[in-house]
Amino acid sequence: MADALKLGLAGIGTVGSGLVRLIAARAGTLPQRAGRPIEIAAISTRNKRKKRDIDLSGVRFFSNPVKLATDPEIDVFVELIGGEEGIAKEAVEAALKTGKHVVTANKALLAHHGTALAALAEKHGVALNFEGAVAGGIPVVKAIREGLQGNDITRVYGILNGTCNYILTKMEREGRDFADVLKEAQAQGYAEADPTFDVGGFDTAHKLTLLTSLAFGTRTKFDAIYVEGIETIAPADIEAADDLGYRIKLLGVALRTDSGIEQRVHPTMVPKETAIANVDGVSNCVAIDGDFIGDVMLIGPGAGGGPTASAVMSDIIDVARGTTLLPFGIKATSLKSYKKAAMRTHEGGYYIRLSVHDRTGAFAAIAQRMAAQGISLQSIVQRRAHSESSKSGTQASVVMVTHETTEAGVRKALAAIERDGHVDAKPQMIRIEKL
Amino acid sequence: MADALKLGLAGIGTVGSGLVRLIAARAGTLPQRAGRPIEIAAISTRNKRKKRDIDLSGVRFFSNPVKLATDPEIDVFVELIGGEEGIAKEAVEAALKTGKHVVTANKALLAHHGTALAALAEKHGVALNFEGAVAGGIPVVKAIREGLQGNDITRVYGILNGTCNYILTKMEREGRDFADVLKEAQAQGYAEADPTFDVGGFDTAHKLTLLTSLAFGTRTKFDAIYVEGIETIAPADIEAADDLGYRIKLLGVALRTDSGIEQRVHPTMVPKETAIANVDGVSNCVAIDGDFIGDVMLIGPGAGGGPTASAVMSDIIDVARGTTLLPFGIKATSLKSYKKAAMRTHEGGYYIRLSVHDRTGAFAAIAQRMAAQGISLQSIVQRRAHSESSKSGTQASVVMVTHETTEAGVRKALAAIERDGHVDAKPQMIRIEKL
Repeated sequence: MADALKLGLAGIGTVGSGLVRLIAARAGTLPQRAGRPIEIAAISTRNKRKKRDIDLSGVRFFSNPVKLATDPEIDVFVELIGGEEGIAKEAVEAALKTGKHVVTANKALLAHHGTALAALAEKHGVALNFEGAVAGGIPVVKAIREGLQGNDITRVYGILNGTCNYILTKMEREGRDFADVLKEAQAQGYAEADPTFDVGGFDTAHKLTLLTSLAFGTRTKFDAIYVEGIETIAPADIEAADDLGYRIKLLGVALRTDSGIEQRVHPTMVPKETAIANVDGVSNCVAIDGDFIGDVMLIGPGAGGGPTASAVMSDIIDVARGTTLLPFGIKATSLKSYKKAAMRTHEGGYYIRLSVHDRTGAFAAIAQRMAAQGISLQSIVQRRAHSESSKSGTQASVVMVTHETTEAGVRKALAAIERDGHVDAKPQMIRIEKL
Repeated sequence: MADALKLGLAGIGTVGSGLVRLIAARAGTLPQRAGRPIEIAAISTRNKRKKRDIDLSGVRFFSNPVKLATDPEIDVFVELIGGEEGIAKEAVEAALKTGKHVVTANKALLAHHGTALAALAEKHGVALNFEGAVAGGIPVVKAIREGLQGNDITRVYGILNGTCNYILTKMEREGRDFADVLKEAQAQGYAEADPTFDVGGFDTAHKLTLLTSLAFGTRTKFDAIYVEGIETIAPADIEAADDLGYRIKLLGVALRTDSGIEQRVHPTMVPKETAIANVDGVSNCVAIDGDFIGDVMLIGPGAGGGPTASAVMSDIIDVARGTTLLPFGIKATSLKSYKKAAMRTHEGGYYIRLSVHDRTGAFAAIAQRMAAQGISLQSIVQRRAHSESSKSGTQASVVMVTHETTEAGVRKALAAIERDGHVDAKPQMIRIEKL
């Protein structure tokens, strides 16, 4: 048997601890599966003295991750620090430059510097593996990079943030509002104290950046993504979605269009009977549409120490087995720059909910504004609003579902409706995804 | 760029044609993705003169696949002939012994000779890749062998035969009976003239054999699988399932139990709201339960030229990239023999439907037989049968759902009920899977 593969592990948080536990649990079988033993040779963590239920006795300790990354004894630098800049980036770069393989679950780092880091890894002939950075334990990086490379992929999309999916599922099942469920999720540790990164859609956008590059062979370009979070989703939307045969999910979607690559993160209506509509709680899923394969979907745990450690371990086993692939499947220098399709050119169906002053002519004026933009409606339902939700006078709720139309048209129509003064709140607009 | 990878392609049926089309369609991008061009250097097919809508002009032709498999010019032998014995086996063995990499979609061959062929491939240091042999285009071999190797897998299961799933979906949606839907499926090309292999569960068992070895690191052992097909499923079962909150799917299931590895293929009741219950038509799915990952599911097209060609191509690209893994993830000599858990030790819930002579005491006698085996019932419903389904006298349909119990007990109870003479047809028994 070959020598042990020696890991330098930076960051002993949830995922890092999970990895330590996994390596201990698999001590007997890993050498067989990986072709050689795998050992944690050294670690680095911010808080050396923190009490942990894992055994790290006898493992060398570095206070500086960069020192760890370049230590002559280690073969693979496992970066579980996180963050797009700073020490994580510095350490990963140092490791690659020293000819160390890198395994990371740091989506922020790769979403912002993926192309450059991949080029650096290729220059030094080492791996830069990041299965744990997208959709937790779901082996989707491998699925695209190794399982579906015969296909031209037309669309990749999914539920990529467990916190959002947990909140939406909870809102739906218990009829509670966003702020209320968020507070509970924070108390239970399902949401961060500052939840913006998750509920604002940015975490989803990080992951979508990587999926886009893998699927389309393009340069990582986080800024090209249109991002909307779930903060504005109200129980009224979830109820109306249910009536219309939909469920609301925060999706990340990337697809090829005539005007470029469209990348967007936003709450989305998906038909109830689809698989994606039934991915609940903290689960994630990723769907890939390819020309030969058709549609494939992977569903599984999107976060957590165990699942993410499983993904990180698969990347480490690849290295142990001697598999060093190009990080994004093709050379970093071949990753294409691409035209970003502007969000206003997006085409699809729209759900629109308006809180309307209930007076003569309002309904007609709204319909007129939609028609003026050439938007045809699939359905329109007017309901007297609950009295507690009206600020002044009598309010009605108008829910419209459009046929396929353009984002530009919908935005213009809604702006005009707002200007007309018939609505007492910002119109709610949720895109419907064709599945 | 490296020299072209030269393929010898044996078998130009649906999948073979799909592969030829795929290679032509990707001529521009394959070199980038695979690191080198990929060419079909030579082919072999039973019917050279058959009209095909693919261009094979200029490609060398062999009438004998074994000659093709050992031709000095080819790097990879792509076996798409099929069949567990005969020329396919001979050609694959010849290719491996000559040091050629082999890519195959032949599940029958591998289910029966997987361990031996893997050992042969390892001895000669070449790949034996078979992504296309399990669940068509779904990259599940890679998912288990490369994506989830950090886990101890406790169960692997799925819908592995598109024909059966198509028939069951159609029976359910249209309320038609098995024979009727089968005839239509045959006319439309969704089922073979001799459908036994598919509807009898044997194709599912072939695939389950491979999944079991990949998941548990065991020797391929087709004979260890308990197999039941879908031929006995009646509209009455589908209706009763619906009433009870289930759908009926043909599943292949392998799991570790205290008495060994349990492998079984049979119609199964799955709760309606689960993802697997909503995998319809010709789609397949595979679910994997691991100790660190939790539960993962992959859904996609389970058959057809395009999807299977996509899977075969991913195997070829692995070879082009220089990735040569052990076929089952660990050395063939390390694959374990295992104790087969007898089907009578299976534990689970059961659905039982009896056609009972409607006379005093029958119901009590049946209940008594169940109780005598210590089987407790979750529900029992008696219905007057439709008059057309009774052979003589008045019939009643009794549908029982048991709590978790053993197969042995259920079989004994049903045998006793049959002996008692209260039923006029063989009892129907469908297992309920805990998900």
